Amino acid sequence: MTQTQPLARMVEYEEADARVRAVYDDILATKGIKAVPNFWKTLGSHPPLLEDVWANIKRTMTPGRLDALTKEMIAIAVSAAHGCDYCLNSHTAAARKLGLDDTMLGELLDVVGAFSRTNKLADAYQVPVDEPLARIARGES
Amino acid sequence: MTQTQPLARMVEYEEADARVRAVYDDILATKGIKAVPNFWKTLGSHPPLLEDVWANIKRTMTPGRLDALTKEMIAIAVSAAHGCDYCLNSHTAAARKLGLDDTMLGELLDVVGAFSRTNKLADAYQVPVDEPLARIARGES
Amino acid sequence: MTQTQPLARMVEYEEADARVRAVYDDILATKGIKAVPNFWKTLGSHPPLLEDVWANIKRTMTPGRLDALTKEMIAIAVSAAHGCDYCLNSHTAAARKLGLDDTMLGELLDVVGAFSRTNKLADAYQVPVDEPLARIARGES
Amino acid sequence: MTQTQPLARMVEYEEADARVRAVYDDILATKGIKAVPNFWKTLGSHPPLLEDVWANIKRTMTPGRLDALTKEMIAIAVSAAHGCDYCLNSHTAAARKLGLDDTMLGELLDVVGAFSRTNKLADAYQVPVDEPLARIARGES
Amino acid sequence: MTQTQPLARMVEYEEADARVRAVYDDILATKGIKAVPNFWKTLGSHPPLLEDVWANIKRTMTPGRLDALTKEMIAIAVSAAHGCDYCLNSHTAAARKLGLDDTMLGELLDVVGAFSRTNKLADAYQVPVDEPLARIARGES
Amino acid sequence: MTQTQPLARMVEYEEADARVRAVYDDILATKGIKAVPNFWKTLGSHPPLLEDVWANIKRTMTPGRLDALTKEMIAIAVSAAHGCDYCLNSHTAAARKLGLDDTMLGELLDVVGAFSRTNKLADAYQVPVDEPLARIARGES
Repeated sequence: MTQTQPLARMVEYEEADARVRAVYDDILATKGIKAVPNFWKTLGSHPPLLEDVWANIKRTMTPGRLDALTKEMIAIAVSAAHGCDYCLNSHTAAARKLGLDDTMLGELLDVVGAFSRTNKLADAYQVPVDEPLARIARGES
Repeated sequence: MTQTQPLARMVEYEEADARVRAVYDDILATKGIKAVPNFWKTLGSHPPLLEDVWANIKRTMTPGRLDALTKEMIAIAVSAAHGCDYCLNSHTAAARKLGLDDTMLGELLDVVGAFSRTNKLADAYQVPVDEPLARIARGES
Repeated sequence: MTQTQPLARMVEYEEADARVRAVYDDILATKGIKAVPNFWKTLGSHPPLLEDVWANIKRTMTPGRLDALTKEMIAIAVSAAHGCDYCLNSHTAAARKLGLDDTMLGELLDVVGAFSRTNKLADAYQVPVDEPLARIARGES
Repeated sequence: MTQTQPLARMVEYEEADARVRAVYDDILATKGIKAVPNFWKTLGSHPPLLEDVWANIKRTMTPGRLDALTKEMIAIAVSAAHGCDYCLNSHTAAARKLGLDDTMLGELLDVVGAFSRTNKLADAYQVPVDEPLARIARGES
Repeated sequence: MTQTQPLARMVEYEEADARVRAVYDDILATKGIKAVPNFWKTLGSHPPLLEDVWANIKRTMTPGRLDALTKEMIAIAVSAAHGCDYCLNSHTAAARKLGLDDTMLGELLDVVGAFSRTNKLADAYQVPVDEPLARIARGES
Repeated sequence: MTQTQPLARMVEYEEADARVRAVYDDILATKGIKAVPNFWKTLGSHPPLLEDVWANIKRTMTPGRLDALTKEMIAIAVSAAHGCDYCLNSHTAAARKLGLDDTMLGELLDVVGAFSRTNKLADAYQVPVDEPLARIARGES
């Protein structure tokens, strides 16, 4: 059991003070879930960090020009690139709720894998940027 | 000028042998472009690598359950996580051609930034995975 | 000149709308500088990201239990681990203003280098965590 | 039990030869501990590596212009950026002994998180370095 | 038990369709093993990815100018740099079969550790490339 | 010119004190070169770091069970995984002197690319380690 404890003490809902509980309540209501996930209970050990990260995630994940599933797939891609197990579970779960199946996950990780390879090849060979591509990348006609 | 040369000699279209030229021709036709990008000219220095990477990218980027723009945005996210300048220019250019504007790029990098932060926080605090989330992530009802 | 342009168009102070200018004004006042750095002008291309990142940095870098120079040195260490040139210049400049000299920078990067090595060795050998150390790390007496 | 074994056989104190035991003894004396941590027992499988890493860590962590706690916090920041669980436990334990509490750990990881985000944003947008900042960073004028 | 399941369902040999089984059969024959490793069973959840990755690994690991053990050691080095536990076990096992012992593993990880340190130092200090070295690196004269 | 300066002032041979010059002399003699590379001149700004890193590199790169070219190729692989331009130039130059040509470099980076992909796939899918492989990896039986 001890090996599943994080480096700071998780603050449970029942023991949270008003500041922390306000964030927890918003997390539960926004996500439509009944238990505060371990990530947020851990950030509860440092309330300003909890408030800031939650406000950031809530705003960032609100559908805009990109829809909710696209944003979750990008979150999976970033978490895969960084190798964060907790985040991969968390975002894959969120994407599953939005319709991701094994084939879509396969396509997504296929892209992640392909460019993890070319990223290293381009860096290792020190390939110079093609100026015409750079101009298009910058949005110059 | 010397500082823009990669670590292996780029093989120009004109000097390429039949094996390399066959790949170059397919790249030009598939992408609808007129000049072979530096990345592919560099891989031309090792033909089996050129053939393999191009076959991989061509298959991977074909629209499937995920559309072309979504795949390019995932490629940008991976390249941002790994910090590959060449790849960021290349994929942002490709995404621009598919309609990406500064606001969409902003939303995309907003998600990349948000989860680059939470990835490190979850790892650093060593937050244990919530088993109910893991079950959903694995597609178990 | 073109190679020094970021992937989104930098928004100059003069052309910024009220929302962006409010952030720029707070950056200039808080840092006591006269020109908006390129990083913030680039985020100006996506105002919600600009607002969020600036609010986060402003709060995070306010001295608390850790003083300003310690926080900047941690920022240098993180930027060194991730290899971000822009950030290394920016945070080293900030630390220099707070008194960092070449010897202190040497000690700082000496620590960064030493643990970049041991990080890889511990991961590669897959060394199991010593449970007594883990208990102390978690703050258990 | 098998899953907690590293990839090379750990050399226990009792079985260590004179060369390895000399390092172990110095580790125990310098740290004021009674059992050789797993990291060092694993490096005991390759004595020249054990000697070199220990000499490096011992020298690097000696207080100089930076004090011991600052150095341990930098070690935590680097280990967080690289995601090394063993190292996070080891250095957080060392920092706890020097007075780190959950609030200080929160401030430290708050900084790590904030700049893990801005590192990726600066790299992804390919923000050009502000030359005035670079001059200050280099300690000029 | 649940915690040892991957994010997509592993496809067992017995339940695999003809396309997946053809790859599994080639893996078993090529490696001279009797059970399909978990990595390949997981990729079995997305057959085009399984086919592509196996074809790539089979071609890449065929001895050429570099022999099999050298290639496996490079695979260990890359996996150590990226911190991939599965890959470290898999490639160290393969290298052990080709003769790697603890001393050779120690020398290998000694090199990995040494340059993980200098990589970060060169990046952090932003050391400019020596042009004479770059010319040699590019194979000029 | 200013953009090619590192963050700490490089110490030229002519201005080096006896401690730094002793290291420089050993570098020149050991490598059989006539000018101190920029990396070492930069570390000259912090003599204890210069001494330590040079002693480490000199010992690590001495041929043992692994020969000099194998060690340089591992150094290239690590530098490619971390994306360190300076190091890639430096180690590719060293390997060129030992006989590395474009085909060997192609085979080497082919392996680096292949496992950069599988590293991410194994991590992203969270593939459990095959216990029989782990036992072989640990050198048991």
